Amino acid sequence: MFGVKRFIGKIEGTVAFVEGEELVHLKSVLRLKEGDEVCVVNGDGKDYLGKISKIDKNYAKVDVISSKISEICPKNDISLFIAATKREKLEIIVQKAVELGVKKLFMFESEFSTMKLSSEKISRYEKIMFSATKQCERADFMSIEIVSFKQMLALFGKKQTKLFANEREGEDFNFASLKTAKDIGILIGCEGGFSQNEKAQILQLKPENISLGQRILRAETAAILLTGMASIISGN
Amino acid sequence: MFGVKRFIGKIEGTVAFVEGEELVHLKSVLRLKEGDEVCVVNGDGKDYLGKISKIDKNYAKVDVISSKISEICPKNDISLFIAATKREKLEIIVQKAVELGVKKLFMFESEFSTMKLSSEKISRYEKIMFSATKQCERADFMSIEIVSFKQMLALFGKKQTKLFANEREGEDFNFASLKTAKDIGILIGCEGGFSQNEKAQILQLKPENISLGQRILRAETAAILLTGMASIISGN
Repeated sequence: MFGVKRFIGKIEGTVAFVEGEELVHLKSVLRLKEGDEVCVVNGDGKDYLGKISKIDKNYAKVDVISSKISEICPKNDISLFIAATKREKLEIIVQKAVELGVKKLFMFESEFSTMKLSSEKISRYEKIMFSATKQCERADFMSIEIVSFKQMLALFGKKQTKLFANEREGEDFNFASLKTAKDIGILIGCEGGFSQNEKAQILQLKPENISLGQRILRAETAAILLTGMASIISGN
Repeated sequence: MFGVKRFIGKIEGTVAFVEGEELVHLKSVLRLKEGDEVCVVNGDGKDYLGKISKIDKNYAKVDVISSKISEICPKNDISLFIAATKREKLEIIVQKAVELGVKKLFMFESEFSTMKLSSEKISRYEKIMFSATKQCERADFMSIEIVSFKQMLALFGKKQTKLFANEREGEDFNFASLKTAKDIGILIGCEGGFSQNEKAQILQLKPENISLGQRILRAETAAILLTGMASIISGN
Protein backbone atom coordinates (compact mmCIF):
# COMPACT_ATOMS: atom_id res chain seq x y z
CA MET A 1 0.00 0.00 0.00
CA PHE A 2 3.11 2.20 0.11
CA GLY A 3 3.01 5.18 -2.18
CA VAL A 4 -0.75 5.04 -2.82
CA LYS A 5 -2.43 8.24 -1.61
CA ARG A 6 -4.76 7.77 1.31
CA PHE A 7 -8.08 9.51 1.98
CA ILE A 8 -10.73 9.51 4.66
CA GLY A 9 -14.08 8.71 3.07
CA LYS A 10 -17.38 6.86 3.13
CA ILE A 11 -17.70 3.28 1.98
CA GLU A 12 -20.99 2.17 0.42
CA GLY A 13 -20.76 -1.42 -0.73
CA THR A 14 -18.14 -1.57 -3.48
CA VAL A 15 -17.98 2.18 -3.91
CA ALA A 16 -16.19 4.81 -1.83
CA PHE A 17 -16.81 8.55 -1.72
CA VAL A 18 -14.30 11.25 -0.87
CA GLU A 19 -15.84 14.59 0.08
CA GLY A 20 -15.22 17.96 1.75
CA GLU A 21 -11.66 18.89 2.61
CA GLU A 22 -10.46 15.47 1.54
CA LEU A 23 -11.86 16.15 -1.91
CA VAL A 24 -10.06 19.49 -2.07
CA HIS A 25 -6.83 17.71 -1.19
CA LEU A 26 -7.45 15.03 -3.84
CA LYS A 27 -8.39 17.48 -6.61
CA SER A 28 -6.49 20.68 -5.98
CA VAL A 29 -3.42 19.67 -3.99
CA LEU A 30 -2.56 16.23 -5.33
CA ARG A 31 -4.33 16.85 -8.68
CA LEU A 32 -5.44 13.24 -9.00
CA LYS A 33 -7.49 12.24 -12.04
CA GLU A 34 -10.06 9.61 -12.93
CA GLY A 35 -8.29 6.27 -13.19
CA ASP A 36 -5.76 7.03 -10.45
CA GLU A 37 -5.34 4.48 -7.68
CA VAL A 38 -6.16 5.55 -4.13
CA CYS A 39 -6.76 4.03 -0.73
CA VAL A 40 -9.85 5.07 1.22
CA VAL A 41 -10.35 4.44 4.93
CA ASN A 42 -13.50 4.97 6.98
CA GLY A 43 -12.19 4.04 10.40
CA ASP A 44 -13.34 0.42 10.43
CA GLY A 45 -9.75 -0.85 10.40
CA LYS A 46 -9.70 -1.82 6.71
CA ASP A 47 -7.80 -0.35 3.76
CA TYR A 48 -10.10 0.04 0.75
CA LEU A 49 -8.01 0.11 -2.41
CA GLY A 50 -9.59 1.28 -5.63
CA LYS A 51 -9.59 3.53 -8.68
CA ILE A 52 -11.17 6.94 -9.02
CA SER A 53 -14.09 6.50 -11.41
CA LYS A 54 -15.56 10.01 -11.25
CA ILE A 55 -14.55 13.42 -9.94
CA ASP A 56 -17.52 15.68 -9.37
CA LYS A 57 -17.94 19.09 -7.74
CA ASN A 58 -18.98 17.59 -4.41
CA TYR A 59 -17.33 14.20 -4.35
CA ALA A 60 -14.86 11.81 -5.91
CA LYS A 61 -16.21 8.33 -6.48
CA VAL A 62 -13.86 5.40 -6.07
CA ASP A 63 -14.55 1.89 -7.34
CA VAL A 64 -13.22 -0.39 -4.65
CA ILE A 65 -11.11 -3.21 -6.06
CA SER A 66 -10.00 -4.85 -2.83
CA SER A 67 -10.20 -4.36 0.90
CA LYS A 68 -8.11 -5.83 3.64
CA ILE A 69 -7.73 -5.53 7.38
CA SER A 70 -4.85 -3.17 8.06
CA GLU A 71 -1.79 -4.59 9.74
CA ILE A 72 -1.07 -1.16 11.14
CA CYS A 73 -4.08 -1.15 13.47
CA PRO A 74 -3.06 -1.10 17.13
CA LYS A 75 -3.23 -4.59 18.59
CA ASN A 76 -3.56 -3.54 22.22
CA ASP A 77 -6.09 -1.33 23.91
CA ILE A 78 -4.15 1.75 24.97
CA SER A 79 -6.02 4.72 26.44
CA LEU A 80 -4.24 7.99 27.10
CA PHE A 81 -5.65 10.32 29.78
CA ILE A 82 -4.26 13.81 29.55
CA ALA A 83 -4.91 16.83 31.75
CA ALA A 84 -5.83 19.99 29.86
CA THR A 85 -2.78 22.04 28.98
CA LYS A 86 -1.97 24.60 26.27
CA ARG A 87 -3.71 24.03 22.95
CA GLU A 88 -0.45 23.65 21.00
CA LYS A 89 0.66 20.93 23.39
CA LEU A 90 -2.64 19.09 23.17
CA GLU A 91 -2.37 19.25 19.38
CA ILE A 92 1.08 17.66 19.45
CA ILE A 93 -0.19 15.00 21.85
CA VAL A 94 -3.14 14.17 19.58
CA GLN A 95 -0.84 13.80 16.57
CA LYS A 96 1.70 11.65 18.40
CA ALA A 97 -0.94 9.52 20.14
CA VAL A 98 -2.26 8.48 16.72
CA GLU A 99 1.24 7.65 15.50
CA LEU A 100 1.98 5.65 18.63
CA GLY A 101 -1.17 3.55 18.40
CA VAL A 102 -3.42 4.97 21.11
CA LYS A 103 -7.03 3.79 20.67
CA LYS A 104 -8.77 6.27 22.95
CA LEU A 105 -7.67 9.71 24.05
CA PHE A 106 -9.40 11.34 27.01
CA MET A 107 -8.85 14.97 27.99
CA PHE A 108 -9.91 16.30 31.38
CA GLU A 109 -9.49 19.42 33.45
CA SER A 110 -7.45 19.18 36.65
CA GLU A 111 -6.92 21.78 39.37
CA PHE A 112 -3.71 23.09 37.83
CA SER A 113 -4.98 23.04 34.24
CA THR A 114 -4.19 26.30 32.51
CA MET A 115 -6.92 25.82 29.93
CA LYS A 116 -10.63 25.11 29.80
CA LEU A 117 -11.76 22.31 27.54
CA SER A 118 -14.83 22.78 25.40
CA SER A 119 -16.56 20.27 23.18
CA GLU A 120 -16.54 22.74 20.27
CA LYS A 121 -12.77 22.37 20.05
CA ILE A 122 -12.97 18.61 19.61
CA SER A 123 -13.40 19.04 15.85
CA ARG A 124 -10.07 20.85 15.67
CA TYR A 125 -8.37 17.94 17.44
CA GLU A 126 -10.20 15.44 15.26
CA LYS A 127 -8.87 17.18 12.17
CA ILE A 128 -5.36 16.65 13.46
CA MET A 129 -6.26 13.04 14.28
CA PHE A 130 -7.45 12.43 10.70
CA SER A 131 -4.32 13.96 9.23
CA ALA A 132 -2.07 11.87 11.48
CA THR A 133 -4.11 8.76 10.69
CA LYS A 134 -3.33 9.14 7.00
CA GLN A 135 0.31 9.98 7.61
CA CYS A 136 0.98 6.86 9.66
CA GLU A 137 -1.33 4.73 7.49
CA ARG A 138 -3.74 3.71 10.22
CA ALA A 139 -7.14 2.49 9.05
CA ASP A 140 -8.89 2.94 12.39
CA PHE A 141 -9.70 6.25 14.06
CA MET A 142 -8.51 7.14 17.54
CA SER A 143 -11.45 8.46 19.58
CA ILE A 144 -11.12 11.78 21.39
CA GLU A 145 -13.37 12.58 24.32
CA ILE A 146 -13.62 15.21 27.02
CA VAL A 147 -14.41 13.81 30.47
CA SER A 148 -14.51 15.15 34.01
CA PHE A 149 -11.77 14.36 36.53
CA LYS A 150 -14.19 11.97 38.23
CA GLN A 151 -15.02 10.19 34.97
CA MET A 152 -11.31 9.96 34.21
CA LEU A 153 -10.72 8.22 37.55
CA ALA A 154 -13.44 5.67 36.78
CA LEU A 155 -12.14 4.95 33.26
CA PHE A 156 -8.45 4.88 34.21
CA GLY A 157 -9.28 2.73 37.24
CA LYS A 158 -10.80 0.05 35.00
CA LYS A 159 -7.66 -0.43 32.90
CA GLN A 160 -5.70 -3.57 33.68
CA THR A 161 -2.31 -1.89 33.48
CA LYS A 162 -2.33 1.66 34.87
CA LEU A 163 0.71 3.84 34.19
CA PHE A 164 0.83 7.11 36.13
CA ALA A 165 3.65 9.54 35.31
CA ASN A 166 4.26 11.04 38.73
CA GLU A 167 7.31 13.20 38.02
CA ARG A 168 9.85 13.20 40.82
CA GLU A 169 7.54 11.38 43.23
CA GLY A 170 7.35 8.34 40.98
CA GLU A 171 9.54 5.29 41.21
CA ASP A 172 11.78 3.33 38.89
CA PHE A 173 9.65 1.10 36.75
CA ASN A 174 10.49 -2.22 35.13
CA PHE A 175 9.28 -1.50 31.62
CA ALA A 176 9.91 -5.11 30.58
CA SER A 177 6.78 -5.97 32.60
CA LEU A 178 4.74 -4.33 29.82
CA LYS A 179 5.63 -7.13 27.40
CA THR A 180 2.40 -9.00 28.02
CA ALA A 181 0.16 -5.98 28.74
CA LYS A 182 -2.91 -5.64 26.52
CA ASP A 183 -5.22 -3.22 28.30
CA ILE A 184 -3.18 -0.16 29.20
CA GLY A 185 -4.11 3.23 30.63
CA ILE A 186 -1.60 6.08 30.68
CA LEU A 187 -2.19 9.13 32.87
CA ILE A 188 -0.27 12.38 32.38
CA GLY A 189 -0.76 15.64 34.26
CA CYS A 190 -0.34 19.13 32.91
CA GLU A 191 2.64 21.34 33.77
CA GLY A 192 2.48 21.71 37.53
CA GLY A 193 1.20 18.15 37.88
CA PHE A 194 -1.71 17.25 40.13
CA SER A 195 -2.78 18.71 43.47
CA GLN A 196 -2.19 16.65 46.61
CA ASN A 197 -5.90 15.91 46.77
CA GLU A 198 -6.00 14.73 43.16
CA LYS A 199 -2.85 12.66 43.62
CA ALA A 200 -4.37 10.89 46.63
CA GLN A 201 -7.39 9.89 44.54
CA ILE A 202 -5.20 8.63 41.70
CA LEU A 203 -2.92 6.64 43.99
CA GLN A 204 -5.97 4.94 45.53
CA LEU A 205 -6.39 3.21 42.16
CA LYS A 206 -2.99 1.56 42.78
CA PRO A 207 -1.39 2.52 39.46
CA GLU A 208 2.25 1.96 38.57
CA ASN A 209 3.73 5.11 40.05
CA ILE A 210 6.36 6.00 37.48
CA SER A 211 9.28 8.41 37.46
CA LEU A 212 10.54 9.48 34.04
CA GLY A 213 13.91 10.55 35.39
CA GLN A 214 15.43 13.46 37.26
CA ARG A 215 14.85 16.16 34.69
CA ILE A 216 11.49 17.93 34.44
CA LEU A 217 9.75 16.82 31.27
CA ARG A 218 7.13 18.92 29.57
CA ALA A 219 3.67 17.34 29.54
CA GLU A 220 3.84 16.47 25.84
CA THR A 221 7.30 14.92 26.19
CA ALA A 222 6.13 12.73 29.07
CA ALA A 223 3.04 11.72 27.10
CA ILE A 224 4.99 10.79 23.97
CA LEU A 225 7.61 8.92 25.94
CA LEU A 226 5.39 6.84 28.19
CA THR A 227 2.90 6.10 25.42
CA GLY A 228 5.67 5.16 23.00
CA MET A 229 7.39 2.88 25.49
CA ALA A 230 4.12 1.16 26.39
CA SER A 231 3.25 0.78 22.72
CA ILE A 232 6.60 -0.58 21.57
CA ILE A 233 7.29 -2.86 24.52
CA SER A 234 3.76 -4.33 24.51
CA GLY A 235 4.12 -5.00 20.78
CA ASN A 236 1.20 -2.76 19.92
CA MET B 1 16.40 24.90 43.95
CA PHE B 2 12.74 24.62 42.98
CA GLY B 3 10.99 27.91 42.44
CA VAL B 4 14.17 29.98 42.19
CA LYS B 5 14.41 31.64 38.78
CA ARG B 6 17.25 30.38 36.63
CA PHE B 7 19.47 32.38 34.27
CA ILE B 8 22.30 31.68 31.88
CA GLY B 9 25.24 33.90 32.82
CA LYS B 10 28.94 34.37 33.39
CA ILE B 11 30.63 33.35 36.63
CA GLU B 12 33.66 35.34 37.79
CA GLY B 13 34.85 34.08 41.15
CA THR B 14 32.10 34.76 43.67
CA VAL B 15 30.17 37.04 41.36
CA ALA B 16 27.85 36.18 38.46
CA PHE B 17 26.70 38.43 35.62
CA VAL B 18 23.46 38.15 33.68
CA GLU B 19 23.45 40.01 30.35
CA GLY B 20 21.73 40.39 26.97
CA GLU B 21 18.39 38.68 26.49
CA GLU B 22 18.70 37.01 29.86
CA LEU B 23 18.90 40.45 31.44
CA VAL B 24 15.77 41.58 29.59
CA HIS B 25 13.99 38.51 30.92
CA LEU B 26 15.20 39.19 34.46
CA LYS B 27 14.32 42.90 34.44
CA SER B 28 11.35 43.33 32.16
CA VAL B 29 9.57 40.00 32.14
CA LEU B 30 10.12 38.68 35.65
CA ARG B 31 10.65 42.16 37.15
CA LEU B 32 13.21 40.93 39.65
CA LYS B 33 14.80 43.46 42.00
CA GLU B 34 18.03 43.84 43.90
CA GLY B 35 18.00 41.39 46.81
CA ASP B 36 16.01 38.72 44.93
CA GLU B 37 17.39 35.20 44.93
CA VAL B 38 18.36 33.65 41.59
CA CYS B 39 20.26 30.69 40.24
CA VAL B 40 22.87 31.28 37.53
CA VAL B 41 24.35 28.56 35.35
CA ASN B 42 27.24 28.84 32.92
CA GLY B 43 27.23 25.33 31.53
CA ASP B 44 29.90 23.85 33.84
CA GLY B 45 27.35 21.56 35.49
CA LYS B 46 27.00 23.61 38.68
CA ASP B 47 24.08 25.63 40.04
CA TYR B 48 25.28 29.00 41.35
CA LEU B 49 22.80 30.32 43.88
CA GLY B 50 22.97 33.94 44.89
CA LYS B 51 21.31 37.31 45.40
CA ILE B 52 21.04 40.13 42.89
CA SER B 53 23.28 42.90 44.22
CA LYS B 54 22.98 45.35 41.34
CA ILE B 55 20.82 45.84 38.27
CA ASP B 56 22.46 48.04 35.67
CA LYS B 57 21.62 48.94 32.09
CA ASN B 58 23.89 46.26 30.65
CA TYR B 59 24.03 43.61 33.34
CA ALA B 60 22.66 42.28 36.58
CA LYS B 61 25.30 41.41 39.15
CA VAL B 62 24.68 38.43 41.41
CA ASP B 63 26.62 37.74 44.61
CA VAL B 64 27.06 33.99 44.65
CA ILE B 65 26.22 32.48 48.05
CA SER B 66 26.68 28.82 47.24
CA SER B 67 27.40 26.53 44.32
CA LYS B 68 26.81 22.86 43.93
CA ILE B 69 27.11 20.22 41.27
CA SER B 70 23.69 19.72 39.75
CA GLU B 71 22.03 16.35 40.24
CA ILE B 72 20.13 16.92 37.03
CA CYS B 73 23.23 16.65 34.82
CA PRO B 74 23.10 13.63 32.51
CA LYS B 75 25.11 10.76 33.93
CA ASN B 76 25.68 8.93 30.67
CA ASP B 77 27.21 10.10 27.41
CA ILE B 78 24.35 10.16 24.94
CA SER B 79 24.92 11.59 21.46
CA LEU B 80 22.01 12.08 19.09
CA PHE B 81 22.72 12.12 15.34
CA ILE B 82 19.89 13.55 13.33
CA ALA B 83 19.52 13.93 9.57
CA ALA B 84 18.49 17.41 8.45
CA THR B 85 14.74 17.75 8.24
CA LYS B 86 12.31 20.67 8.44
CA ARG B 87 13.38 23.50 10.75
CA GLU B 88 10.32 23.17 13.02
CA LYS B 89 11.09 19.51 13.53
CA LEU B 90 14.74 20.17 14.28
CA GLU B 91 13.66 22.80 16.81
CA ILE B 92 11.40 20.31 18.59
CA ILE B 93 14.22 17.76 18.56
CA VAL B 94 16.69 20.25 20.08
CA GLN B 95 14.25 21.11 22.86
CA LYS B 96 13.40 17.49 23.65
CA ALA B 97 17.02 16.32 23.42
CA VAL B 98 17.93 18.77 26.21
CA GLU B 99 15.02 17.57 28.36
CA LEU B 100 15.95 13.93 27.78
CA GLY B 101 19.58 14.41 28.76
CA VAL B 102 21.45 14.30 25.46
CA LYS B 103 25.02 15.61 25.83
CA LYS B 104 25.85 16.14 22.18
CA LEU B 105 23.55 16.73 19.24
CA PHE B 106 24.92 16.32 15.72
CA MET B 107 23.00 17.36 12.61
CA PHE B 108 24.01 16.18 9.15
CA GLU B 109 22.65 16.22 5.62
CA SER B 110 21.66 12.92 4.05
CA GLU B 111 20.58 12.16 0.49
CA PHE B 112 16.88 12.50 1.30
CA SER B 113 17.27 15.59 3.50
CA THR B 114 14.75 18.20 2.54
CA MET B 115 16.79 21.01 4.08
CA LYS B 116 20.28 22.43 3.88
CA LEU B 117 22.07 23.00 7.16
CA SER B 118 24.05 26.16 7.65
CA SER B 119 26.22 27.14 10.55
CA GLU B 120 24.49 30.54 10.79
CA LYS B 121 21.36 28.78 11.97
CA ILE B 122 23.16 27.14 14.87
CA SER B 123 22.57 30.20 17.05
CA ARG B 124 18.81 29.80 16.57
CA TYR B 125 19.05 26.20 17.77
CA GLU B 126 21.32 27.22 20.64
CA LYS B 127 18.74 29.72 21.80
CA ILE B 128 16.20 26.91 22.02
CA MET B 129 18.79 24.79 23.80
CA PHE B 130 19.38 27.53 26.43
CA SER B 131 15.67 27.96 27.00
CA ALA B 132 15.13 24.20 27.40
CA THR B 133 18.16 24.03 29.72
CA LYS B 134 16.54 26.46 32.12
CA GLN B 135 13.13 24.85 31.86
CA CYS B 136 14.41 21.39 32.80
CA GLU B 137 16.94 22.81 35.29
CA ARG B 138 20.05 21.42 33.65
CA ALA B 139 23.30 23.15 34.59
CA ASP B 140 25.30 21.83 31.65
CA PHE B 141 24.84 22.81 28.01
CA MET B 142 24.12 20.29 25.27
CA SER B 143 26.49 20.93 22.37
CA ILE B 144 25.05 21.32 18.86
CA GLU B 145 27.24 20.71 15.85
CA ILE B 146 26.81 20.35 12.09
CA VAL B 147 28.85 17.52 10.57
CA SER B 148 29.06 15.79 7.20
CA PHE B 149 27.57 12.34 6.63
CA LYS B 150 31.10 10.94 6.66
CA GLN B 151 31.96 12.65 9.94
CA MET B 152 28.69 11.37 11.39
CA LEU B 153 29.67 7.80 10.47
CA ALA B 154 33.02 8.19 12.22
CA LEU B 155 31.50 9.68 15.39
CA PHE B 156 28.55 7.30 15.56
CA GLY B 157 30.87 4.37 14.86
CA LYS B 158 32.94 5.18 17.93
CA LYS B 159 30.01 4.97 20.36
CA GLN B 160 29.91 1.81 22.46
CA THR B 161 26.16 1.33 22.11
CA LYS B 162 24.85 2.30 18.68
CA LEU B 163 21.10 2.57 18.23
CA PHE B 164 19.89 2.93 14.65
CA ALA B 165 16.19 3.55 14.07
CA ASN B 166 15.68 1.68 10.81
CA GLU B 167 11.91 1.96 10.41
CA ARG B 168 10.27 -1.18 9.05
CA GLU B 169 13.61 -2.80 8.22
CA GLY B 170 14.68 -2.77 11.84
CA GLU B 171 14.22 -5.60 14.29
CA ASP B 172 12.70 -6.05 17.71
CA PHE B 173 15.14 -4.79 20.29
CA ASN B 174 15.56 -5.85 23.89
CA PHE B 175 15.58 -2.42 25.51
CA ALA B 176 16.46 -3.95 28.89
CA SER B 177 19.98 -4.40 27.49
CA LEU B 178 20.42 -0.62 27.80
CA LYS B 179 20.39 -0.87 31.59
CA THR B 180 24.18 -0.83 31.82
CA ALA B 181 24.90 1.32 28.75
CA LYS B 182 26.96 4.44 29.37
CA ASP B 183 28.23 5.58 25.96
CA ILE B 184 25.25 5.69 23.63
CA GLY B 185 24.81 6.95 20.07
CA ILE B 186 21.35 7.32 18.55
CA LEU B 187 20.92 7.71 14.79
CA ILE B 188 17.68 8.95 13.25
CA GLY B 189 17.00 9.63 9.57
CA CYS B 190 14.74 12.28 8.11
CA GLU B 191 11.35 11.51 6.59
CA GLY B 192 12.09 9.13 3.77
CA GLY B 193 14.90 7.54 5.75
CA PHE B 194 18.28 6.80 4.27
CA SER B 195 19.24 5.74 0.74
CA GLN B 196 20.33 2.12 0.19
CA ASN B 197 23.91 3.29 -0.17
CA GLU B 198 23.78 5.24 3.08
CA LYS B 199 22.10 2.36 4.88
CA ALA B 200 24.83 -0.03 3.77
CA GLN B 201 27.48 2.28 5.26
CA ILE B 202 25.56 2.60 8.52
CA LEU B 203 24.97 -1.14 8.85
CA GLN B 204 28.70 -1.77 8.37
CA LEU B 205 29.17 -0.15 11.78
CA LYS B 206 27.11 -3.01 13.25
CA PRO B 207 24.60 -0.90 15.14
CA GLU B 208 21.52 -2.23 16.90
CA ASN B 209 19.10 -2.22 13.98
CA ILE B 210 15.89 -1.15 15.66
CA SER B 211 12.27 -1.13 14.58
CA LEU B 212 9.99 1.27 16.41
CA GLY B 213 6.87 -0.63 15.43
CA GLN B 214 4.62 -1.07 12.43
CA ARG B 215 3.37 2.48 12.17
CA ILE B 216 5.41 5.15 10.38
CA LEU B 217 6.76 7.57 12.96
CA ARG B 218 7.71 11.12 12.08
CA ALA B 219 11.40 11.87 12.51
CA GLU B 220 10.88 13.91 15.67
CA THR B 221 8.67 11.23 17.24
CA ALA B 222 11.28 8.56 16.57
CA ALA B 223 14.01 10.81 17.98
CA ILE B 224 12.10 11.61 21.17
CA LEU B 225 11.09 8.01 21.69
CA LEU B 226 14.43 6.31 21.15
CA THR B 227 16.34 9.00 23.05
CA GLY B 228 13.87 8.92 25.93
CA MET B 229 13.94 5.16 26.20
CA ALA B 230 17.74 5.06 26.12
CA SER B 231 17.92 7.83 28.71
CA ILE B 232 15.39 6.38 31.14
CA ILE B 233 16.43 2.76 30.89
CA SER B 234 20.16 3.57 31.19
CA GLY B 235 19.39 5.66 34.27
CA ASN B 236 20.74 8.82 32.66
